[in-house]
Amino acid sequence: MRARDLLTDFPTVTLDTAVLEAARLLADQDLPGLIVVDESGLPASILPGTQVLRLAVPGYCQDDPALARVVDERHADGFLASLNDRAVREALPARPRELPVTDPDATALELAALMARTHSPLVAIVSGNRLLGAVTLQALLDGLLAQ
Amino acid sequence: MRARDLLTDFPTVTLDTAVLEAARLLADQDLPGLIVVDESGLPASILPGTQVLRLAVPGYCQDDPALARVVDERHADGFLASLNDRAVREALPARPRELPVTDPDATALELAALMARTHSPLVAIVSGNRLLGAVTLQALLDGLLAQ
Repeated sequence: MRARDLLTDFPTVTLDTAVLEAARLLADQDLPGLIVVDESGLPASILPGTQVLRLAVPGYCQDDPALARVVDERHADGFLASLNDRAVREALPARPRELPVTDPDATALELAALMARTHSPLVAIVSGNRLLGAVTLQALLDGLLAQ
Repeated sequence: MRARDLLTDFPTVTLDTAVLEAARLLADQDLPGLIVVDESGLPASILPGTQVLRLAVPGYCQDDPALARVVDERHADGFLASLNDRAVREALPARPRELPVTDPDATALELAALMARTHSPLVAIVSGNRLLGAVTLQALLDGLLAQ
């Protein structure tokens, strides 16, 4: 079993997609995360669902979630909508992380190690400068458990 | 909108559950993660899906996923099954992390900050020494986007 056997088409967003639209895509399609592509169509970032949410959480709450409690319920409910059309590009962390990206030959164990290490339930599969799709944690587990 | 409004029942495993059984529960019910409870029924650990997978990945692959490539395909396919009945207790990381646990009064912003900070698409809701259930990333996004 190789990455190519577990591969599925996966929607992408660009650096110019609005964070609100990215969150909506995640929610509507019940995705484990999002692939953000650059101008060449290759992954610029891969965001697990929690990190798509992170794009929208105000900075002062990120280090200390308890600070979020001082925000009243009405504003707490509206934090996502208050982003308006802020783009993914503006919200990505400054410090780039290791991207969960590999090639179609990766084995099930490689995919598992990469997901575990990067905390990403989603690995992008790239071959010859082209994004082929993604392997999700769900697809990997289903493949492994069907053995 | 408070945690209590977004709460759902959520299956739990115990420290004595086999890792393989935990992985099967995650895959079969398409869960974003698992709540591991201790003898008193309170969360001992909350594992995002990728970290359930991590319980099964051999130590030498965790720091350097490239090492996984040297394992042949047959063994790579079988790594999950090779755990046999190894229990969750034996596989949990030695260094405990901040648990994504809060109370039913937490606001949407608090839940989002907690998920982002702990990289967990799942927050356990506890009140008066009782586990009430969980709020998932999906439920939180659905709630926020329905505003």
